Amino acid sequence: MRLINKFHLAPKTGIAFVVVKGQVIRVIDTDGEQVSDIVCFVKGDTSEYLSSSRSIDYNEKIYLSTGNTLYSNLSNPMLTIIRDKVGKHDFLFAPCSQEMFQISYNIREPHPNCLDNLDLHLSYFGINKHMIPTAFNIFMNATITEDGRLRIEPPLSKAGDYIDFQAEMDLVIGITACSSLKCNNYKNTSIVVEVYDR
Amino acid sequence: MRLINKFHLAPKTGIAFVVVKGQVIRVIDTDGEQVSDIVCFVKGDTSEYLSSSRSIDYNEKIYLSTGNTLYSNLSNPMLTIIRDKVGKHDFLFAPCSQEMFQISYNIREPHPNCLDNLDLHLSYFGINKHMIPTAFNIFMNATITEDGRLRIEPPLSKAGDYIDFQAEMDLVIGITACSSLKCNNYKNTSIVVEVYDR
Repeated sequence: MRLINKFHLAPKTGIAFVVVKGQVIRVIDTDGEQVSDIVCFVKGDTSEYLSSSRSIDYNEKIYLSTGNTLYSNLSNPMLTIIRDKVGKHDFLFAPCSQEMFQISYNIREPHPNCLDNLDLHLSYFGINKHMIPTAFNIFMNATITEDGRLRIEPPLSKAGDYIDFQAEMDLVIGITACSSLKCNNYKNTSIVVEVYDR
Repeated sequence: MRLINKFHLAPKTGIAFVVVKGQVIRVIDTDGEQVSDIVCFVKGDTSEYLSSSRSIDYNEKIYLSTGNTLYSNLSNPMLTIIRDKVGKHDFLFAPCSQEMFQISYNIREPHPNCLDNLDLHLSYFGINKHMIPTAFNIFMNATITEDGRLRIEPPLSKAGDYIDFQAEMDLVIGITACSSLKCNNYKNTSIVVEVYDR
């Protein structure tokens, strides 16, 4: 693989960029225990976007890892996980948002959050906040009890761990270094994104 | 409560209609073991719609029942479950679709499906297929194994069982009698929807 782009995401920030079919997006947890949200849209058609519920349906499971494909709302393959050093990610939670910090933690002052970070960068591609779907929450470790309750635990990722996605179509991609404290074992660190030609 | 509308949904069909804040939507499984998908949009603003991932986040669980509120993509309360005779519903699976029947069951001829039934009726409200979100799948009984695999089991609903939703804002609602076989213990029966003023 030939490295063609590299993005350094400071803690609590995001980025958006375009990839073409066949390219590989590597998301690296530089310091360990850091969640990174990824969403994507078809390049040139923002009405087709990542769908957690179609992906969960077609893979018949909620924890996706190496070999699994992430689908669009129109049931087309968007990303395939081709390498995964961690193996536990979340696809149930919405990106953290100002509203989430208020509803769940009663925080009323402005708080950095993944939804605003995605919106900031994706808006240049014609994608507005209300169009941002449920993200694939890389390295997020949510455990489900038998009665369906959710418990957020520290990510299993160690410093330098990464996951590789192969683009199955030309895509606009948004990625964050998550701003929540609970999801990231009560600290916020950076994320590095590398894009490779195969 | 005063009954103001009643809809009979034949097997494998759908309906869409408007409710105002405070009204109650009752979804009745007439014959038992029949799933019904419900989605909703803010009346007059189709950019705000039901969000499974925000609802799961704020309720901190995946199985919602009496007392739980379903939220929009903008984190506003849309529906509250005020009565529930069954207690097990799904919020992970996308509405069944022609593409799902092809991908999961290799069915290539046209098959009735919830997505097309929602689209047929919601299109009159300016809502197109790509805008239809993950539905709250009333009475659908999906079990999650410890490693995250999903198993679809017969609904727990008996003939006449129902669930009541209170509208927390003025809404456009789409509801189906699900067309899948696996979700409905290998038969398809009808759904009755009643709308009440409180």
